[in-house]
Amino acid sequence: MWRVMETPLNCAEEQQPPPALPASWSTVTPQESPADRNDKGNAVGFVLVHAGAGYHSESKAKEYKHVCKRACQRAVDRLKAGALAVDAVTAALVELEDSPFTNAGMGSNLNLSGEIECDASIMDGKSLRYGAVGAVSGINNPVLVANRLLSEAQKGKLSAGRIPPCFLVGRGAHDWAVNHGIPPCPSEKMATKFSLSAYKRNKHKMELAEKVDTGFNHHSKKRRQASETENGSGLLDTVGAIVVDREGNVAAAVSSGGLAMKHPGRVGQAAHHGCGCWAENTSTLNPYSTAVSTSGSPFLASEDCVLGGVIVLRCCRCSDAQPSPDIQAILVEFLWSHTTESMCVGYMSAQDGKAKTHISRLPPGAVAGQSLAIEGGVCRLVNTPTTVD
Amino acid sequence: MWRVMETPLNCAEEQQPPPALPASWSTVTPQESPADRNDKGNAVGFVLVHAGAGYHSESKAKEYKHVCKRACQRAVDRLKAGALAVDAVTAALVELEDSPFTNAGMGSNLNLSGEIECDASIMDGKSLRYGAVGAVSGINNPVLVANRLLSEAQKGKLSAGRIPPCFLVGRGAHDWAVNHGIPPCPSEKMATKFSLSAYKRNKHKMELAEKVDTGFNHHSKKRRQASETENGSGLLDTVGAIVVDREGNVAAAVSSGGLAMKHPGRVGQAAHHGCGCWAENTSTLNPYSTAVSTSGSPFLASEDCVLGGVIVLRCCRCSDAQPSPDIQAILVEFLWSHTTESMCVGYMSAQDGKAKTHISRLPPGAVAGQSLAIEGGVCRLVNTPTTVD
Repeated sequence: MWRVMETPLNCAEEQQPPPALPASWSTVTPQESPADRNDKGNAVGFVLVHAGAGYHSESKAKEYKHVCKRACQRAVDRLKAGALAVDAVTAALVELEDSPFTNAGMGSNLNLSGEIECDASIMDGKSLRYGAVGAVSGINNPVLVANRLLSEAQKGKLSAGRIPPCFLVGRGAHDWAVNHGIPPCPSEKMATKFSLSAYKRNKHKMELAEKVDTGFNHHSKKRRQASETENGSGLLDTVGAIVVDREGNVAAAVSSGGLAMKHPGRVGQAAHHGCGCWAENTSTLNPYSTAVSTSGSPFLASEDCVLGGVIVLRCCRCSDAQPSPDIQAILVEFLWSHTTESMCVGYMSAQDGKAKTHISRLPPGAVAGQSLAIEGGVCRLVNTPTTVD
Repeated sequence: MWRVMETPLNCAEEQQPPPALPASWSTVTPQESPADRNDKGNAVGFVLVHAGAGYHSESKAKEYKHVCKRACQRAVDRLKAGALAVDAVTAALVELEDSPFTNAGMGSNLNLSGEIECDASIMDGKSLRYGAVGAVSGINNPVLVANRLLSEAQKGKLSAGRIPPCFLVGRGAHDWAVNHGIPPCPSEKMATKFSLSAYKRNKHKMELAEKVDTGFNHHSKKRRQASETENGSGLLDTVGAIVVDREGNVAAAVSSGGLAMKHPGRVGQAAHHGCGCWAENTSTLNPYSTAVSTSGSPFLASEDCVLGGVIVLRCCRCSDAQPSPDIQAILVEFLWSHTTESMCVGYMSAQDGKAKTHISRLPPGAVAGQSLAIEGGVCRLVNTPTTVD
């Protein structure tokens, strides 16, 4: 299923998308005039975020849209201040983690022991470096640790030639973060009324399921009942963001509280290199820069019902059809796709006044895990040659 | 650089390798006669192991060869007993971990706090499932935990529909293992005289390096000195194994004590999905089954000097040139490659009397990290149609 998404074009003329785009995609007249753009100076960049692929009721939709809007704004603020993609994508993630409505940072799912353990990772498309934390407790912005691991690694080797870490887990991750100035947060402050009551309901449900199993069949392993899970719709509520900056660098990040009632120490795809996110600048082998952030898991490949979502962008320099000889443009093609019932996304260019947000839904009658929704758009970023490599 | 490796062919006739192989590879007359093979019944399978890519002095070479030989034998014993690839590869890894000379399980590198934290993962080419542990302490056979995670996940969902974990880290991994009957091992029993004295030397060297930095330049960060590391040659001493079983299933596994003096909680590539190992059976899209186990890290991509090693195999059913109409054969092509000074490997078919072992070295004058050694061979496994799907 393809739906057409109309998106703003941040240049004076209406441009046709390149042939690589599906025929059903379209671009529209820009929201701004060239004069508006000039007022904002050379603010260039683009961000696409999502606040989880799962199920968003109409009542929750507003909150999720709000947090996506704020996350886009945070990233754009950073881009306008001259930050590169990695910092902008981190800023977006911090906002998504801070929301008590997302399953990341504050308000994350509780594990089997009633504790919060978070996963997060970030990738810089310029250096191809990656930073990640897994099963870390007591840090309300795990993405800050992932970002710091990445930036520390870029400084080179540690004393005596030791290779700096890029992936830390558990207590070691927590201690490293605190030693690097990232403030700890007591776990009890990270839990919300909602996450605590969900934990109680899940615990009760598990106990019931195990009692039933034991009662009915003493020989079967008590835990093999595939009864429906309480938190099924929220299972994969990872958040993510992808960014292009003024230089055309891309970055991607992802953060997750993981599965509700997971075993302590479980690390999900959000922390896995090459699974939770990917960012890769253009190279001699590849004309496109690419950034991806996923929700759901490749490890679910053999599950009956694969629930997941993804945000993707690719961008390239437009050598043809430049607005003027002294201005260069970056064409950004982006999309989101999900097999879950819904996915909440937001996107914004640095030249937009505010973010666009959207709750993408499977069409009526489509079955989650068996149908795929894809939507996307095109955005043209206009830059002066001085800030383009 | 390509070197030619002559390998036994486990069928009556000498066969030419398929055109996909480099022209420099060759196959030789089998070590055994068909009569020998028949005596051993239908024992079919192949294992390739390595005990680390790094630097192996002549004095250490003998020990490493011995452990590779024992690891191959363990895997072949399992294959002969009817085990599938996953179990055989686990048996090989247990032997490699048990050696105090390898940086895996017993005798692993100590971290910054003087503790042992291990990574291991395993992948089953049939189900594409993966199991892994990261930064786990107090377990002397981490691969057993990875294998158990994989087999538990294959049993289906947990109570109340929860998805079983496939990657556990730190304390949670330890506790899960013990709850699943894997015996704990006090950390002090896992350290060896060698690892303890290396830790003391490294600690002293770090302190010196930091003192020197502080003395010479108060403004520079004390830990940025890229002085040569004490343990440079042993840095990437991960162990691994890959197996093909009688049904043509492949499996791969990897285990590592990680970098010496690493930060507590650091997880290396051995535990990363798609990084430490990969196994994938043939499918409609792919005529080959493939298994890979790596040492060294893709995260080192931006280092000046990339040190690593890999063992690889691929296999396919031979529809042509069968020994007889009622016998089917599996052709296994295998190789090892490294950029380190040396790599110790062993390989064995279930029809061989004993394993072949080899210390592969860069040619004289080649610089580690800048040159690549590749060697490999071909092996034909002969099977009766009843045990081939």
